[in-house]
Amino acid sequence: MSRKSKRSLKEKFSLKNSLVKEALSEFLGTFVLIALGCGCVGQAVLSRGAHGGPMTVSVGFAMAVTIAVYVSGGVSGGHINPAVSLAMCVTGRLKWTKLPIYILAQLLGAFVGAAAVFGIYYNAFMQFSDGRLEVTGPNATAQIFATYPAPYLSLINGFADQVMSTAVLLLAIFAIFDTKNNSVPKGLEPIAVGLLIIVLTCSLGMNSGCAMNPARDLGPRLFTAIAGWGMEVFTAGNNWWWVPIVAPMLGAVLGAMIYIIFIEMHHSDAQSEEENDARAKYELTNMA
Amino acid sequence: MSRKSKRSLKEKFSLKNSLVKEALSEFLGTFVLIALGCGCVGQAVLSRGAHGGPMTVSVGFAMAVTIAVYVSGGVSGGHINPAVSLAMCVTGRLKWTKLPIYILAQLLGAFVGAAAVFGIYYNAFMQFSDGRLEVTGPNATAQIFATYPAPYLSLINGFADQVMSTAVLLLAIFAIFDTKNNSVPKGLEPIAVGLLIIVLTCSLGMNSGCAMNPARDLGPRLFTAIAGWGMEVFTAGNNWWWVPIVAPMLGAVLGAMIYIIFIEMHHSDAQSEEENDARAKYELTNMA
Amino acid sequence: MSRKSKRSLKEKFSLKNSLVKEALSEFLGTFVLIALGCGCVGQAVLSRGAHGGPMTVSVGFAMAVTIAVYVSGGVSGGHINPAVSLAMCVTGRLKWTKLPIYILAQLLGAFVGAAAVFGIYYNAFMQFSDGRLEVTGPNATAQIFATYPAPYLSLINGFADQVMSTAVLLLAIFAIFDTKNNSVPKGLEPIAVGLLIIVLTCSLGMNSGCAMNPARDLGPRLFTAIAGWGMEVFTAGNNWWWVPIVAPMLGAVLGAMIYIIFIEMHHSDAQSEEENDARAKYELTNMA
Amino acid sequence: MSRKSKRSLKEKFSLKNSLVKEALSEFLGTFVLIALGCGCVGQAVLSRGAHGGPMTVSVGFAMAVTIAVYVSGGVSGGHINPAVSLAMCVTGRLKWTKLPIYILAQLLGAFVGAAAVFGIYYNAFMQFSDGRLEVTGPNATAQIFATYPAPYLSLINGFADQVMSTAVLLLAIFAIFDTKNNSVPKGLEPIAVGLLIIVLTCSLGMNSGCAMNPARDLGPRLFTAIAGWGMEVFTAGNNWWWVPIVAPMLGAVLGAMIYIIFIEMHHSDAQSEEENDARAKYELTNMA
Repeated sequence: MSRKSKRSLKEKFSLKNSLVKEALSEFLGTFVLIALGCGCVGQAVLSRGAHGGPMTVSVGFAMAVTIAVYVSGGVSGGHINPAVSLAMCVTGRLKWTKLPIYILAQLLGAFVGAAAVFGIYYNAFMQFSDGRLEVTGPNATAQIFATYPAPYLSLINGFADQVMSTAVLLLAIFAIFDTKNNSVPKGLEPIAVGLLIIVLTCSLGMNSGCAMNPARDLGPRLFTAIAGWGMEVFTAGNNWWWVPIVAPMLGAVLGAMIYIIFIEMHHSDAQSEEENDARAKYELTNMA
Repeated sequence: MSRKSKRSLKEKFSLKNSLVKEALSEFLGTFVLIALGCGCVGQAVLSRGAHGGPMTVSVGFAMAVTIAVYVSGGVSGGHINPAVSLAMCVTGRLKWTKLPIYILAQLLGAFVGAAAVFGIYYNAFMQFSDGRLEVTGPNATAQIFATYPAPYLSLINGFADQVMSTAVLLLAIFAIFDTKNNSVPKGLEPIAVGLLIIVLTCSLGMNSGCAMNPARDLGPRLFTAIAGWGMEVFTAGNNWWWVPIVAPMLGAVLGAMIYIIFIEMHHSDAQSEEENDARAKYELTNMA
Repeated sequence: MSRKSKRSLKEKFSLKNSLVKEALSEFLGTFVLIALGCGCVGQAVLSRGAHGGPMTVSVGFAMAVTIAVYVSGGVSGGHINPAVSLAMCVTGRLKWTKLPIYILAQLLGAFVGAAAVFGIYYNAFMQFSDGRLEVTGPNATAQIFATYPAPYLSLINGFADQVMSTAVLLLAIFAIFDTKNNSVPKGLEPIAVGLLIIVLTCSLGMNSGCAMNPARDLGPRLFTAIAGWGMEVFTAGNNWWWVPIVAPMLGAVLGAMIYIIFIEMHHSDAQSEEENDARAKYELTNMA
Repeated sequence: MSRKSKRSLKEKFSLKNSLVKEALSEFLGTFVLIALGCGCVGQAVLSRGAHGGPMTVSVGFAMAVTIAVYVSGGVSGGHINPAVSLAMCVTGRLKWTKLPIYILAQLLGAFVGAAAVFGIYYNAFMQFSDGRLEVTGPNATAQIFATYPAPYLSLINGFADQVMSTAVLLLAIFAIFDTKNNSVPKGLEPIAVGLLIIVLTCSLGMNSGCAMNPARDLGPRLFTAIAGWGMEVFTAGNNWWWVPIVAPMLGAVLGAMIYIIFIEMHHSDAQSEEENDARAKYELTNMA
């Protein structure tokens, strides 16, 4: 395509409505997150450990987050997670009216990303278990897409696990982006977020896979329900499915509050002009 | 060599023709990519896992890409991949007339890089299989150089795999370099590209080794055909060889298009002056 | 919460006393360090290697340090370690009067972080050893929280180990932050510190787990003494508990001295204006 | 120590002679490199794989290089390797008269670093092989310090291996520091060099451990000869010891030449003012 025809194409399709362009951005970011992130789990599970293990899943999923934030960061803030979007609303960094669109775009992106993983590994799925798509047992593959609790985990312990891990996630994200703290230089925040995901999955991943993201969990779960794993994806683990939806929402707000109370609230006024500039930058991106 | 004699040497050999210098740059970059990248696979295979495994291959190959882009980035854009060069042409970031030279230089660099791996590990190859160079079976070593499909993989699934993985590769590269998105600071893009390769090989590497690069695959395959593995390197895997050539070309253009349609096309005009500056920077490097 | 009500909340709680805000920062930073860092050890131990190993513990703990320094770096310097705070006092980078508060906050943060790990993995602990919390033997779990010496280690070798590893830690931290050396760009120091922790745990972790931090060791040890492991956590390993407290304090001062004597003392005067500026920056943060 | 007394101490010891301060810097840098780097090999060998493996050794050694370059980069250029110093002399980036002092400081630092590893792991060495320090066989520990060839490796293949790996090392270092290429931002070069070491050890480490550094190899080898392993450290592997001394010197010059011929020589004159500035920066550091 020549550069001139690209220009005219741009004029034709260019979206005046910033919400639509932010929705496209969150959709694409969450698609990349799930296609690559759940792809890492798929490679480890479907190869029965020959092509992956705890380290490739942890580092791989973390870098999937990094890439997804690079894809969507400049346009929509790179939330790719309803719990993050909620925390941004609660702390005045995103308009409440935008929240439903953000969440819908994220959910849709995650659903399509899950479909991509299934498509790319279709032959591998068929060979893995002779075409049977199972939720539990030694040939289970449902955990490639959504998270399931370990056998020993009680519902209340699992709920606390998701609240706490998402709280730490948000607390750290607020620190990484806080220009009045020792924040990460612009353009490198996605890498710092990736490093954060590495430690979260290495430390809090054993109970239930460390979803910390309602879209990351529900989107692929819905896909598996339709694609052949059946309704067991909702009933398994003592009806586990709602925990990685509700608990991260609570945890995200809690983590944001903790950061504000322990750190942000006490930044001295001498720096407040800088703060306003930084906030303005945020708003240009997120409040438009 | 004293500094003065170096100066005169420089005057003698300095190339007025930018295309030749770009070809040298792509040749050296792709040489480094293959010598180090395929070296990682070689170390894991030839030591039968004692000195390497999925993680060293994934991280090692990724850092080989990073170093190769540092070597060739400033002069020729650091494509080291015909699929990337094609996508740059299609989106007006590289002159079409340069494409054949870029591809030839990349292919040659990959061929010589494969020869270097064979030379450095010559004793190891001989000891590994008593001098027999095999394409399939437990003593196969051809997969150190080119990619081969997993036994379960159909040609259509393998083709889709290479289209999708290269599409995600390009989509992410466009994000990483898009100065109107949250782009990586200048001089650190090669590291971000390396992190991208980590997640791609951890998530989409199981089907067929995630070539995503016609030069990376065909160059070493040609070398093995000549060096003693024979024509089986082309017939193996149901004549697999053409898939990692054709599919990445398609995927690269697809990925670039997706990024432009979902993200780049909607950047607001307020920022367009900055965009022009950034594009000018690109052109200085790539269109000269 | 609307932005206006947040403002008024801020006015209400904003702390004039910088020491209190620094204490909060060190508390939260050390909490994050232990919750995530000891979480990594917990995941590896409690899953008996299925969800973690030497690499996830090393990289995970290192990234826990990185995140903890991001959380607390801008407000209190991100020491999260009494040995670091002591070295800062000895070299005139922190007021001596602040030292007790820093140490107390760090110790408290580590204690609460250990409690969080126990809480999040409560079901896993119960299932791991049928509810018995053991300090030694194949079902030991105390080493998830505090460090214990390897069976072969003498007290004097262990003491030397902690002196040396903490000396290298401080020596390297001083280099990373020394603006007259090739220091890390502002905002990326926490990542460099994380990379430093990776190599320290990979190279000096085998003798006794590489605590290098009295708060990181004593806080969780106190927690385990109370939570059910009993006083054996103090007597085990030939009364090991005091070594990771005393030796790191010595090692930190030693390492800082070595860096100053070998490197910092010889910076030329031509750069001293720049130095003063950098020192001023430090003081704004740490001496306030 | 109060700040005033530190000032007076500084005046007393401050070295007018820049060569002495550069020697101290190279000594300390190489000490850190070997203490941490060989420490990683030690941890993997002495724990018989329980606390380390190919990945911890590769990543750990690489980060040891990163930290060592941070420690010594600003004062002496952070060569920590006679082969690098030689290449800097040959290309006019270091005065020839400084070369012997640099090499001596590096060798001494490596020797003391090896002693530190032996000291810190003294109990572990004694327990590993009942006090016998062996060069070959299942209880060999000499390879913790110096490199030895794999059983299959011929002397000529090993020599080529060290020439090529050091050539790629230097070629890449020149790219990383070349301000007219897409060079790494100031202060982050040590991290890029670390990533380079990761891929070199993952791809070219199997033949003989990828020394690429005469000081890194000879210093610790001398230590082991004295400390109890005996003269077998020189005769083992068909008198291997001279290969990692001579071959890296050749390879380093070769790699620097390749980079200059393929890339640096062709930088357009339009940028030459910037180049002069960058060269001036180098000279301030290295030619003083």
